[in-house]
Amino acid sequence: MEEPSFKHFNGVRSKLYIIVFGTDTPAGKLFDVVLLVAILLSIVVVMLESVSALQARFDHVFDLLEWTFTILFSIEYITRIFITRRPEKYVFSFLGLIDLIALLPTYIALFVTGGSYLVVIRAIRLLRVFRILKLTRYLSEAQMLGSALNSSKRKILVFMGAVSTLVMITGTLMYLIEGGQNGFTSIPRSIYWAVVTVTTVGYGDIAPQTVLGQSFATVLMLMGYAIIAVPTGIVSSEMRKMDKRAEIEGSRPCSRCKEMNPKDANYCMKCGNQY
Amino acid sequence: MEEPSFKHFNGVRSKLYIIVFGTDTPAGKLFDVVLLVAILLSIVVVMLESVSALQARFDHVFDLLEWTFTILFSIEYITRIFITRRPEKYVFSFLGLIDLIALLPTYIALFVTGGSYLVVIRAIRLLRVFRILKLTRYLSEAQMLGSALNSSKRKILVFMGAVSTLVMITGTLMYLIEGGQNGFTSIPRSIYWAVVTVTTVGYGDIAPQTVLGQSFATVLMLMGYAIIAVPTGIVSSEMRKMDKRAEIEGSRPCSRCKEMNPKDANYCMKCGNQY
Amino acid sequence: MEEPSFKHFNGVRSKLYIIVFGTDTPAGKLFDVVLLVAILLSIVVVMLESVSALQARFDHVFDLLEWTFTILFSIEYITRIFITRRPEKYVFSFLGLIDLIALLPTYIALFVTGGSYLVVIRAIRLLRVFRILKLTRYLSEAQMLGSALNSSKRKILVFMGAVSTLVMITGTLMYLIEGGQNGFTSIPRSIYWAVVTVTTVGYGDIAPQTVLGQSFATVLMLMGYAIIAVPTGIVSSEMRKMDKRAEIEGSRPCSRCKEMNPKDANYCMKCGNQY
Amino acid sequence: MEEPSFKHFNGVRSKLYIIVFGTDTPAGKLFDVVLLVAILLSIVVVMLESVSALQARFDHVFDLLEWTFTILFSIEYITRIFITRRPEKYVFSFLGLIDLIALLPTYIALFVTGGSYLVVIRAIRLLRVFRILKLTRYLSEAQMLGSALNSSKRKILVFMGAVSTLVMITGTLMYLIEGGQNGFTSIPRSIYWAVVTVTTVGYGDIAPQTVLGQSFATVLMLMGYAIIAVPTGIVSSEMRKMDKRAEIEGSRPCSRCKEMNPKDANYCMKCGNQY
Repeated sequence: MEEPSFKHFNGVRSKLYIIVFGTDTPAGKLFDVVLLVAILLSIVVVMLESVSALQARFDHVFDLLEWTFTILFSIEYITRIFITRRPEKYVFSFLGLIDLIALLPTYIALFVTGGSYLVVIRAIRLLRVFRILKLTRYLSEAQMLGSALNSSKRKILVFMGAVSTLVMITGTLMYLIEGGQNGFTSIPRSIYWAVVTVTTVGYGDIAPQTVLGQSFATVLMLMGYAIIAVPTGIVSSEMRKMDKRAEIEGSRPCSRCKEMNPKDANYCMKCGNQY
Repeated sequence: MEEPSFKHFNGVRSKLYIIVFGTDTPAGKLFDVVLLVAILLSIVVVMLESVSALQARFDHVFDLLEWTFTILFSIEYITRIFITRRPEKYVFSFLGLIDLIALLPTYIALFVTGGSYLVVIRAIRLLRVFRILKLTRYLSEAQMLGSALNSSKRKILVFMGAVSTLVMITGTLMYLIEGGQNGFTSIPRSIYWAVVTVTTVGYGDIAPQTVLGQSFATVLMLMGYAIIAVPTGIVSSEMRKMDKRAEIEGSRPCSRCKEMNPKDANYCMKCGNQY
Repeated sequence: MEEPSFKHFNGVRSKLYIIVFGTDTPAGKLFDVVLLVAILLSIVVVMLESVSALQARFDHVFDLLEWTFTILFSIEYITRIFITRRPEKYVFSFLGLIDLIALLPTYIALFVTGGSYLVVIRAIRLLRVFRILKLTRYLSEAQMLGSALNSSKRKILVFMGAVSTLVMITGTLMYLIEGGQNGFTSIPRSIYWAVVTVTTVGYGDIAPQTVLGQSFATVLMLMGYAIIAVPTGIVSSEMRKMDKRAEIEGSRPCSRCKEMNPKDANYCMKCGNQY
Repeated sequence: MEEPSFKHFNGVRSKLYIIVFGTDTPAGKLFDVVLLVAILLSIVVVMLESVSALQARFDHVFDLLEWTFTILFSIEYITRIFITRRPEKYVFSFLGLIDLIALLPTYIALFVTGGSYLVVIRAIRLLRVFRILKLTRYLSEAQMLGSALNSSKRKILVFMGAVSTLVMITGTLMYLIEGGQNGFTSIPRSIYWAVVTVTTVGYGDIAPQTVLGQSFATVLMLMGYAIIAVPTGIVSSEMRKMDKRAEIEGSRPCSRCKEMNPKDANYCMKCGNQY
């Protein structure tokens, strides 16, 4: 016979589990939304803390907010471990590790006082932003975009390989043409310039000075202009295929002649058969 | 029995209403075009007034033009209130509020002499530019573009969310990698740099200096290159759907139920009527 | 009875006409190609002449080439007038005016010695580059691209109007936010910055310095990112329609059931009818 | 009767041939992958060698690695000549010449000591990166992208010609408007600026300063915004055609003549065979 208190405890645990890990019940959805708002607020605090002017003025406010969020997230973390049947699965999952790593900095800062490492440790809390990815579950649009990118993954990788080869060759050539006195001090730095140019970012921190270098850069820019069309074509083609599939899924074949008709059709367009 | 003068007054009012608010009659169209030209001219005056060299030389000309336009727009505003049956509906509409706000600066400038606020007050008149949006009524192209953007709104928002997460994470990482001595003085400023980079704008006011930072920026730029394909794919897909719909709309209606059927249909999809 | 010498003269004239204005005969094509090569060479000479280092060293060579090309093009111009039945039609055509304007500078330079106007006058000869447009006659691709741009002209104009309104409003706002001390010295200059930003060019000659200005610029950049998708969608949609039309033109209807079949089909896909 | 040793030698040669030149056997694939990894490593060494800080510290390591790779690639080169029936075909092929040119620098550096030419000679070894192109054989995606670019080659060339004409004319106009004191020192340099602007790269090393120049640049940027849609439209259209072809290829072959017919065909297009 089961111990009643343990049974009761298990009931609470499974209820909590549905709220904390589940996303289907109203309570589960509310919990996720509250958590995400808390995460976004804590991220804003970390960001504002990095602005030295604000840090100097609102030091105590930031400290208070930091501890409030840390304690809240600590409770959430312990609850998650407590209510899962296999805690090790959650702890070593991607989101579980991020939850832990994002908690530690505030506690570590208690012992490590001063020093330039503190800034790095504080910023680690920003990793919580990855939790936003959980939102994607609610959005069919995100899933569609994700799957469009996913199915064109191989093509985009090949494209990236081609662009990498192009920038390696052009970077080296520019290193030889322009040389260190014009900012092209090494081949990796020249490749960085080539990427800045071919992606049409164009910082201007390094720019060709010689006539030959500028002519060469002109050709590279015009190539980048044509090249940018390729990923666009890939993603467009993938989305077209998805639209077509959605269309087919949204249409019924005629029971007599098998012609595909829109979902809301009452009669077959080809043979007049009534659905 | 109705008072004749009031009846006459109502006749003038409804005629004016058709001219001022209507867009279908020749007089109504002419009124809109004249108004838009006046608005554009008044905007040009505000713009040129902000150029200090011109302001110093043509001060009196600008004053004269400013008052001419303000009096004209005041007459227009009062007429609009006067001829509408429910003036409060116009006054609190988006365009009605803009009309009022754009009028006030010149009158306020009479009382507030000097001070740096004057520049701000003057520039508010530029809000009249929103009236250009009224032109969209005449252009089916604008409606088509608008509806293409509108129906892909959710997808574009999801995309913007993904880009926001990306720039938040990369901005924070660059803040840790480069630090304040290379211009990445705070996390918000580093995020600003990440947006400048991923959208391929590339001002170059902040640019990575360390080898690690430049390598990281290279990856971000190449990602931005692939990412820019996504909104293009979304809008293209939306326009394709609209083309298809327009094609269908250009086909034959059923002779019985008026349902639109593709050109090659043998039977009506809705009522089964044979063509 | 016709005067024989005049008849002979007319024969030479019509032969010359076919060579100089015609594009169908081998001689006509050869003339066009030779002329275009000469134009391109003369353009290269004008360009190199503007480089002060080269101008100093090869002054006499440039003078010689300049006169050679001018005399050649003068002969061509006189021939064109001489052989056309209605010379005024050619002289006042777009290409005819450019031919004349491109000839004048060298002759004017004989009388106007020295002075800064000379540089301007010389560069006018570069207008001959418009003659390259004649090449489009030989290229069906150019015609296709041209007609794709032409039929999406109205949509692109509407799009340009929307972008213009956007940059006017954002330019004014940035003028108010940043002010003259950060480079936003006037509204037109701020609008120039907004165009540089929204088109993702990003020179960096003017860049926001305040936190509010940078936040605002971030929003504008992300909007520009989504907006750039619109012209792409427009042109893609137009090209799709042209592909479809070309496909239909490249296919024959079945003589029995009127089903469209590819051009190279021997039998109808639907009813098996032999072509 | 054949000499046994020669026969044996021929057997070894043809086995080696299949490994070194072939790509179908597991050994052939392994050889290619090992070779490409070695090439990529040797390229990384050349790149790092160009960073002066690393060159100073790891001079001897770089020398050792350089010689190791050179000897390995020399053995590979000699083997390739040795095992081909027509060595001259390999030696004068594109990849053969690159293999040779990439080997020479290290040997030349033995005799040419010091001098600024050494840097150039060393960087030549980077040309080996072209060998990455061999990888394309394994990737159907690369072939698809390549063929999409190839079949839109003519359209892209026409587009490039149009852009070239545009930048030539706008470059010249900006040279006249802005002049040398604002960085537009010659027509070629102004054309370089026009390319930087129209491709939306926007270094900012040269930027218009006058009001007229900035207005003109604004128009050019907005044109560049619309123009960038053209190559995207071209590549998208090409990919759409390829998708359609792939779809057709994925449909049923005729049971009699093996001609590919769309899935919904009732009769074969080529031979009239009923499905």
